[in-house]
Amino acid sequence: MPTLHGHSLIAGSRSAGSGTLFHAVSPTDGTTLTGDFCLAALADVDAALQAAAKAASAFRTASGETRARLLEAIAAGMLALGDELIDRARLETGLLEQRLTSERARTVAQLRMFAAIARDNSWVDARIETGSPDLRRMMLPLGPVVVFGASNFPFAYSVAGGDTASALATGNPVIVKAHEAHPGTSELVGEVIAAALRETGLPAGIFSLLQGAGRILGSPLARHPHTKAIGFTGSLTAGRALFDAAANRPDPIPVFAEMGSLNPIVILPGGLTISSAAPAIARSILDGAGQFCTKPGVILLPSGPGAEAFRQTLAASVSATVPSAMLHAGIASSFANSCAAMDSHPALEVLARATTAATGSQGAAIVVATDAAAFLADEALRHEVFGPFAIIVFYQSVAEAIAVLRSLGGQLTASVFGEANEIAATNMLDLLQQIAGRVIVNGVPTGVVVGSAMQHGGPWPASSDSRFTAVGTAALERFIRPVCFQNLPDTLLPPALQQDNPLGIARLVDGAMIPAGGRG
Amino acid sequence: MPTLHGHSLIAGSRSAGSGTLFHAVSPTDGTTLTGDFCLAALADVDAALQAAAKAASAFRTASGETRARLLEAIAAGMLALGDELIDRARLETGLLEQRLTSERARTVAQLRMFAAIARDNSWVDARIETGSPDLRRMMLPLGPVVVFGASNFPFAYSVAGGDTASALATGNPVIVKAHEAHPGTSELVGEVIAAALRETGLPAGIFSLLQGAGRILGSPLARHPHTKAIGFTGSLTAGRALFDAAANRPDPIPVFAEMGSLNPIVILPGGLTISSAAPAIARSILDGAGQFCTKPGVILLPSGPGAEAFRQTLAASVSATVPSAMLHAGIASSFANSCAAMDSHPALEVLARATTAATGSQGAAIVVATDAAAFLADEALRHEVFGPFAIIVFYQSVAEAIAVLRSLGGQLTASVFGEANEIAATNMLDLLQQIAGRVIVNGVPTGVVVGSAMQHGGPWPASSDSRFTAVGTAALERFIRPVCFQNLPDTLLPPALQQDNPLGIARLVDGAMIPAGGRG
Repeated sequence: MPTLHGHSLIAGSRSAGSGTLFHAVSPTDGTTLTGDFCLAALADVDAALQAAAKAASAFRTASGETRARLLEAIAAGMLALGDELIDRARLETGLLEQRLTSERARTVAQLRMFAAIARDNSWVDARIETGSPDLRRMMLPLGPVVVFGASNFPFAYSVAGGDTASALATGNPVIVKAHEAHPGTSELVGEVIAAALRETGLPAGIFSLLQGAGRILGSPLARHPHTKAIGFTGSLTAGRALFDAAANRPDPIPVFAEMGSLNPIVILPGGLTISSAAPAIARSILDGAGQFCTKPGVILLPSGPGAEAFRQTLAASVSATVPSAMLHAGIASSFANSCAAMDSHPALEVLARATTAATGSQGAAIVVATDAAAFLADEALRHEVFGPFAIIVFYQSVAEAIAVLRSLGGQLTASVFGEANEIAATNMLDLLQQIAGRVIVNGVPTGVVVGSAMQHGGPWPASSDSRFTAVGTAALERFIRPVCFQNLPDTLLPPALQQDNPLGIARLVDGAMIPAGGRG
Repeated sequence: MPTLHGHSLIAGSRSAGSGTLFHAVSPTDGTTLTGDFCLAALADVDAALQAAAKAASAFRTASGETRARLLEAIAAGMLALGDELIDRARLETGLLEQRLTSERARTVAQLRMFAAIARDNSWVDARIETGSPDLRRMMLPLGPVVVFGASNFPFAYSVAGGDTASALATGNPVIVKAHEAHPGTSELVGEVIAAALRETGLPAGIFSLLQGAGRILGSPLARHPHTKAIGFTGSLTAGRALFDAAANRPDPIPVFAEMGSLNPIVILPGGLTISSAAPAIARSILDGAGQFCTKPGVILLPSGPGAEAFRQTLAASVSATVPSAMLHAGIASSFANSCAAMDSHPALEVLARATTAATGSQGAAIVVATDAAAFLADEALRHEVFGPFAIIVFYQSVAEAIAVLRSLGGQLTASVFGEANEIAATNMLDLLQQIAGRVIVNGVPTGVVVGSAMQHGGPWPASSDSRFTAVGTAALERFIRPVCFQNLPDTLLPPALQQDNPLGIARLVDGAMIPAGGRG
C-alpha cells in the first residue's frame, strides 16, 4: 500500500494545515493505522472556499458532457484503486470486504447515474414563454456546497458519495469535510477527484478535501460567506449544530441534513402470520451491526398470545448473533452507553441479547420490550440508538399503536405488516405517509434503492427539509435554483434556453412539453 | 356597503379574539374607516391550527377536481363581490380603482391557473420503478401553511393571493394572518373562501383568517406544532423574525419569505443611447408610489458627459411626478425617514425630487446620486427604501460597476441596458445570474408575469430560499414534499400511483415518460 500523505487537499494542492496530527484507528483491534493526518486549519477552510468561489463560473458554464466525464473519471478512478481502496476502508471501518466492494459498486453506479443526468441536461428544467416579455427559466447551480460525509458509508456517503456526485453533476464546486474515522479512505478518493479534474481540464478549485473534526471545522465551513449550501449525513446533534450555524448567518443558506430515524415497523395481527416477517425484521435490525440510517428501531407488536411465535423467532435471531466491530470507538462507546441505560430501565424487559459478550469496539445486539403506555411515558425511549438495537412496543389497540407512532417525530421510513384489508381498515397508511418519507408494506426499511422513485428524507428530525431527498436522481434538486432570463438576445442566452435548442433537451415551450431531441 | 363583522374566521366560525379593537385608516385622508376589528387571541391561533391539522387528511385525499372547484369558487366569489371589494380595498390602501380592478383580475387568473394544475394533478410528479422492490413516489402536501399577506398587493399577495392559491391547490390547509392595513378587504375575501369551502363540501378547518398584528401573532403562528410551512411577503425585518422563529423550533419548518430587493439596473454606455430607457426606468421607480418589490432602487450609470442626457430625462420625470398616498401611515413614515436620511447624507447629491411637497401619508419621489466609492463606503446606502426612491451610482469602469453589484447581496431582479456585444464583453450576465432570480436585458424589473417561466425569489435577502419562487406555477413547489410508497398492494396506493393510472396523469415509469392520458 502506498504512503498516505495525510494532508488536506485545497484546490489540488496539499496543505499540512494546523500541523496537529491525528491517526486512524482500527475498530477491529484498536491498533493505530498507518498515515499521519494533519488537522486542517481555519486558513484551509478559507482557502478552499475562495478557490471554490473562483472556480464556480467556469464550472457552471462547463458543458454537461464535461461534467459527465468528470463524474465518470471519478468512478473509473475509484475502481482503478482496486484492493488498495477496499483494504484501507476495511482497516478504517471494520466493514467486511464484500460489503465494501458492493458499496463501491453502488457508489460508482451512482456517479455514473449522475453523469448521465449531467450529460442529458434534463435537470435544468427549461421553461420558455415567448412573447412580450420573453421569459426563459432554467436551473443553475447554487455555488460552493460543503459536504460532511458519514462514517457508515465510507464510499456511498463520503468523499465521492451521493452529495458530492449530485452537487458536481449540477455544476457546484464541492468542499468535503472528511469523516475523521476514515481519513485514509478519504484521501485516496479525494486524490481521485483531484486527478479527474485535471484529466477533464476543469479548475482544481472545484474540489477540496479537509481533514479534521466536524466540531472544529463545521461551524467555520457553515458560516463562510462563499458557502452556498450544505449536505450532511450523521447524528441529530451534529446536524442540528450545522443547521443552526447556517440559519444564524447574516444570509442563511440551505442545509440538507439527513439525521436520526427510528424507522418504526407496526405489525398488525395479519402480519404476525407472515412467516418471513420476523426473520427479515431481525436481519434488518442486526445486519451491518445495525449501523444503517434505515435500521428499524421501534417494532410495534399486538399484545397477547398471537404474537408469541413472532416474538420467539425475533428473540432467537438476536440471541444467535455474534458481536462485530462497530465503525469506530466513538460509535461503539455511544452504543454501549445507550444499551446500559436500556438494560437498567425499569420499564424495559430484555427480550433477547447476543449470547457472546462484546469486546473492544464491538457492539452486542440487544432487543428490549415494553408496553405502549411506558413507551409514551418516557421521551428518552424515542431517541435513535445507532447499532444493533430495537425496542418492541406491545400495543393493546390500533388507537394505542397510532399514539405511539404519532409520538415519534419525523422518520425516513415507516413500515406496516398486515393483510391489505386490515391495513385499509386501520387507516394506518394515512398516518405513515404523514410521518415518513418512505412508506413500506410487508417489507423492511433497510436497502435503499438508488433511482428516480426513491425518497430518502422525511419530516424533522429524519431530515432537515422533507422536501428533498439524499438518495436517488432527485437528490440533485437540493443544490440548484431557478433563474429567469427576460428579453435576452439569443446570443446571450445559455445554450439550454437558446431558440434553436442546441442541446436538444426537453423544454416546456409556451405550455407545451417539447421532448428531448425536439426543436424550438 | 354591508357591515363588516370584524372578527377572525376560525374554521368558518367567527371569533372576537382578545376583544381589543383596531380600525383601518384611510391613507388618503387619515380618516378612520368603518368596521370594528378584533385582534385575534393566542387561543385563536391554536384553534385555527388544530382545525387545520384535523382537516389535513381529508383535504390531502380530496380529488384534484374538488380542489380545482374550490379555487374556482374563490375566484368567482371575489368577482361576485364586485365594486364592494374594490371600494373597500381602495379606501384601505389608497390604490386607484383601475389598479385594484386589474390586480383582482390577476388574482382571479392566478386562482384559475392553480385550479387547472390541481385538476390535472401534474404537480404530483409521479415516478414509478417496478420490480423488487416496487417503488412509487409522488408529491404530497406538507400540511397546514401559514400565510402572511403583503400590504402592497391587497388581492394578489393577500388572503386569496399566490401563497394561498398554491397551498390550497396542493392540498394544504391555510391560515392567513391578515395584513392589519387592510382588515376589511381581508374579511371580505376570507368570507369568500369560507363560502367556497362550504360550496365544495370541504371541511371548514381548511381555512382560517386571523386579524391582528404580525409582531404579536407571527411568532406563535410560526412556532405552533401543527404549522408545517410559512409563506411571507414583506420586509426583511419581519421576514427574518419569522425565519428565525421557524428555524429555532424543536422541529424547524420551511419558510418562504419574499423580502427586500434593490433590483439594480446597470446602464452600459450603449444603454445610454436607448431613448426609451430613461423614461421607462423613471416609471419603474415612480409607478404605484414605488411600492413594488421589484422597484429598481439602484441605477448604475457610467461617469462622464455621455450620461448627461440620460440623467436629465430621468430627473425631469422625477420632478414632474406628483406625490400620492402610500399604502399606510407606517410605510409613509418609514419612507419619509429614509428620505430625510438620504437628503442629509454628505456623500449624496439630490438629482431630482417631486416639486410638490407630500402631505399626510403621501410619498414624494426623490432620486439621489453618488459615486461608486462613496456607495461602497456606506452599507446604509444598500438598504431597500420602499417607495418612489432610487440612488444613481456613477461608475468609472466596468470593474467598479461589478464591485457595486457584488456589494448588494441577493436580488429578485437585476437588469442591464446595453448593446448585446458590450454586454457579452463585460461578462455582466455571469454576475447578474449569481445575484438575482431574474435577469433582464434592456427592460425594467416591474411587471411580474404569472406563468411557468417566472422566477420571483433570489439569494438572501431577496428571499429566504432562492430555490423557490413566490410567483408562477412553480410557486406550489414550496408546499409539497415527496413520499415513496414501497411494495403497496395496488388497492392501497393513492390513485396517482395505481397501476392502471386512473387519473390519466403523466408519469415516469421505469425511466420512460408516459404522457398524460397514457396508461401504465
